Amino acid sequence: MSETAALAELAKRRGFFFASNGAYGGTAGFYTYGPEGAALKRNIEDAWRDLFVRKLGNVELEAPTVMPEAVFEASGHLDGFDDMIVECAECGATHRADHLVEDAVPDIEDAEALGTDRVGELIAEHDVVCPSCEAELADAPVDEFNLMFGTNIGPGSASPGYLRPETAQGIFVEFPRLKEYARNQLPFGVAQIGRAYRNEISPRRALVRVREFTQAELEHFIDPERDEPPIDRVADVELPLYPATAQHADDGEPEPHTVREALDDGIVGSEWVAYYLGRAMEFYERIGIDMDRFRYRQHLSGERAHYAADCWDAETELGGNWIEVTGFAYRSDYDLSKHGEYAEESFTIFRQYEEPRTVERAAVDPDMSYLGPEFGGEAAAIAEALEALAARDRSAFDGDEVGVNIDGETYTIPVKKTGFAVEEQTEAGEHITPHVVEPSFGVDRLVYSVLIHGLEADTVDGEERSFLELSPTMAPTTVAVFPLMTKDGLDDRARSIADRLRVEGFEVSYDDTGNIGRRYRRQDEVGTPYCVTVDYETKEDDTVTVRERDSTEQTRVQIEDLPDAIGRLVAGETLSEL
Amino acid sequence: MSETAALAELAKRRGFFFASNGAYGGTAGFYTYGPEGAALKRNIEDAWRDLFVRKLGNVELEAPTVMPEAVFEASGHLDGFDDMIVECAECGATHRADHLVEDAVPDIEDAEALGTDRVGELIAEHDVVCPSCEAELADAPVDEFNLMFGTNIGPGSASPGYLRPETAQGIFVEFPRLKEYARNQLPFGVAQIGRAYRNEISPRRALVRVREFTQAELEHFIDPERDEPPIDRVADVELPLYPATAQHADDGEPEPHTVREALDDGIVGSEWVAYYLGRAMEFYERIGIDMDRFRYRQHLSGERAHYAADCWDAETELGGNWIEVTGFAYRSDYDLSKHGEYAEESFTIFRQYEEPRTVERAAVDPDMSYLGPEFGGEAAAIAEALEALAARDRSAFDGDEVGVNIDGETYTIPVKKTGFAVEEQTEAGEHITPHVVEPSFGVDRLVYSVLIHGLEADTVDGEERSFLELSPTMAPTTVAVFPLMTKDGLDDRARSIADRLRVEGFEVSYDDTGNIGRRYRRQDEVGTPYCVTVDYETKEDDTVTVRERDSTEQTRVQIEDLPDAIGRLVAGETLSEL
Repeated sequence: MSETAALAELAKRRGFFFASNGAYGGTAGFYTYGPEGAALKRNIEDAWRDLFVRKLGNVELEAPTVMPEAVFEASGHLDGFDDMIVECAECGATHRADHLVEDAVPDIEDAEALGTDRVGELIAEHDVVCPSCEAELADAPVDEFNLMFGTNIGPGSASPGYLRPETAQGIFVEFPRLKEYARNQLPFGVAQIGRAYRNEISPRRALVRVREFTQAELEHFIDPERDEPPIDRVADVELPLYPATAQHADDGEPEPHTVREALDDGIVGSEWVAYYLGRAMEFYERIGIDMDRFRYRQHLSGERAHYAADCWDAETELGGNWIEVTGFAYRSDYDLSKHGEYAEESFTIFRQYEEPRTVERAAVDPDMSYLGPEFGGEAAAIAEALEALAARDRSAFDGDEVGVNIDGETYTIPVKKTGFAVEEQTEAGEHITPHVVEPSFGVDRLVYSVLIHGLEADTVDGEERSFLELSPTMAPTTVAVFPLMTKDGLDDRARSIADRLRVEGFEVSYDDTGNIGRRYRRQDEVGTPYCVTVDYETKEDDTVTVRERDSTEQTRVQIEDLPDAIGRLVAGETLSEL
Repeated sequence: MSETAALAELAKRRGFFFASNGAYGGTAGFYTYGPEGAALKRNIEDAWRDLFVRKLGNVELEAPTVMPEAVFEASGHLDGFDDMIVECAECGATHRADHLVEDAVPDIEDAEALGTDRVGELIAEHDVVCPSCEAELADAPVDEFNLMFGTNIGPGSASPGYLRPETAQGIFVEFPRLKEYARNQLPFGVAQIGRAYRNEISPRRALVRVREFTQAELEHFIDPERDEPPIDRVADVELPLYPATAQHADDGEPEPHTVREALDDGIVGSEWVAYYLGRAMEFYERIGIDMDRFRYRQHLSGERAHYAADCWDAETELGGNWIEVTGFAYRSDYDLSKHGEYAEESFTIFRQYEEPRTVERAAVDPDMSYLGPEFGGEAAAIAEALEALAARDRSAFDGDEVGVNIDGETYTIPVKKTGFAVEEQTEAGEHITPHVVEPSFGVDRLVYSVLIHGLEADTVDGEERSFLELSPTMAPTTVAVFPLMTKDGLDDRARSIADRLRVEGFEVSYDDTGNIGRRYRRQDEVGTPYCVTVDYETKEDDTVTVRERDSTEQTRVQIEDLPDAIGRLVAGETLSEL
């Protein structure tokens, strides 16, 4: 059984995750996290919050998942967030038209770039058939399908809304308010953990390509000319970089570089991106990604959004495939500029000059008592054109007369009637549009990676055992407490130990069903790092056994020392150090 | 300024919450939590999780917000989750038709119960006009409008989906799997904190009536005959009960009753509901609801869903109005029965008898070699009818012949050809549909209540001060650290103290802008309970001032004792006890 299949079986049986609405035949692309999975996911989110919000001094917001159409006109999602589809006239199934062409025509690697018309022609030329029913698709139209889930806000269809395709938009649109909370000082970072949606044509590979997912995104707003990341903090962190050049080479492999080397050698172009690649390493290690199955892959030029200067993905290897778990992008001023253009408020920030500057400004103050009678209905337009001309080319006012062109007609005005003057002005600063650096994490794919990388099997006492090697801070349960038997007071004793450990803040489970061996296996399967067993010796000397998941080693600990002992184990000590 | 208006101003200015998409003119019914509000909301959710999941031994899941239509056919939301609307032909505005009638006709209190036809007649009879443009609404049709946000899953409209109107459905539909995780043992509780949606006609009153909101719901699955709540744990908890009888009385007021009294006197009908009313008191107190502005109100008979035996709402008083913040319902087997009826899997659980039972079962084994030739195409239907008859009325087989009726025709069959026999069978148990007890919390309304109840004003040093009396465990920031001046090393010292407190797990903010008085006011406004100031005395004796928000008292503490001191303050000690 492949590791992905093994995980799918375990995940459903033990309640990590499973396809939603199974009782209604299932709904493709939607997964429900059961108790164990929801707890693991929450622990991963908390680790992210700790490292990317609290430790970096950023803030977090929570925005709605439904947003109005105007937002996505500005962001470009309404026009550009499409997949190319073809619907079979015979069976009604819908398929990715570009993928069909790529499968049918060996030379074509990126059919989407060819456009719907050409893809339609290629389907006809190569006699592509429907993968579901094998009917010819030659006459089926190829369309663009927008991947946003649409809905209507309020009755009727006057106010279309969409489920956000990324949490980032809920941050960008509120920039006018967020900059106030930051007291108009750059840089500042705003994070959000929440649901996002993509109405995929073909959801697949469990949690990898789903229709509803959780993102953890940080939007770091910076002044591109003045702000620099504290690169020294991460200069020596080693990054497993897989740059575009290595991807193009026949035998290219990821190679370790420190952050400093990656910048000095020009492998990573943006200091900000390099900084976050460095900071994120601690996160992946903490949540339990196997760093031998992890790499940072640079986007090839064709993958990159036109506004993005440099993009890197963090990728994990799962069942032989590399999947993106994080995108690190330098988004320049693209997002705020677009919203500034479409929205009614300002998406700039006022940047003070170091010293106030005195600048010369050419301006006009046209004599309307002359322009009015002279040019009638055109007077206002002429005044406006003079103002624009003065700002653009003050030499035009050097002579006695000046000419402006309005709708193809030239009007000549005596310079002395224009009120032209060059004045000195003192300016304290200027309005700039901040740039955005964005690390964007796919939480579900991280959960999935941590589970697959954690799957282990070995032999204990001659029996095969499968266990989940989750770190003690990520595991849904930190410690499980068992009574050897449910009699002679052992169970009461075990329950009171479990309660005590809960009060100390540990995630605890209590189990008294089945023999001890089976209970250990159950906890091994859900990744519980420590089990505590109350037995008959406990009644004599107030000790319990503490058993460690990975080594299956055991030691005896005094009950009164137990919270401290578990705390030390979680912090990294081993059983023999207790 | 009313307290709701005062809060709205504070909430926007200081980043608790504000209407979403303001730069695009706003989107009615959608709110974004800024940094302070998101932190407060998270603290409230964590308190809920601690009390209703961890402490009660329940589990939590996380399900998608988009669910397929079949789920809502079963749940009744597709047919029944409607508001009555009328659209003005003149201006296009949509209004709640029942509300217009209730406003226009003094005697009518529940117009919705009258049906759309009658409400349409009443609009015409009373010359009701459009509140927006004052046009006559007499000819405008009155319709039912479904409050679920609809969308389509995948391309085309073949798979309609809806944004869930309550998180509960994501739990109910997965009952077949959840009972496996509970090893088929009742009772067990499954909780979820997540978004839910109602496409309100008239969103209003800030966070009270919104289109996207957060629910924290617990579905407790119980065996109605065998499971009892541990009522002793809450027997002495005092509940401010406002029963239906008091609501009907002219001078009825909420009255305190212990849980035990409420049950003994029959005020609360369900032990399970009473148990949760008791448990929840600790939660409301912990998050900072003003318990003098809190009550439990019983549903009047007209408010209750037909399946609900007894329902109570927790209500808070805000600006003179009482709003529901929690619903406590005994939902019987309604939800699981409906899904069992509509879905393909079983929504029952196998209940073992105390002892296996021997029962007599009457059954038939018809001789088809006789029925076939004798009755032709009707033979199968006759066999089926015989089986049903045997189960229903075994005396029908007492004679030589037995008659069955199929589609109005009676067929007579010799009993010896039916294979009728009464057999003894041993049964280990039976399948039952669990009942559901549901405490359902509206998180946004709780956030809103905590903020409004926390708004305080007083006079300090002759100046008016407004502050937010949030409990130390709920406040977005636990401790703010200030240097008196940003020179002479005071700021470095303050920063290192802030870092140290962060490592200890406190939520810390650092502020060095403006004079100290202004910095205190800023923290007062966002409810920060403690401020630490580094001044010139610090350089001499390594002490700092610790200032308490509500009393504005200050004391000096050694820096090395600071984490412990803050910890003790958070735990409830006062400044003078340090």
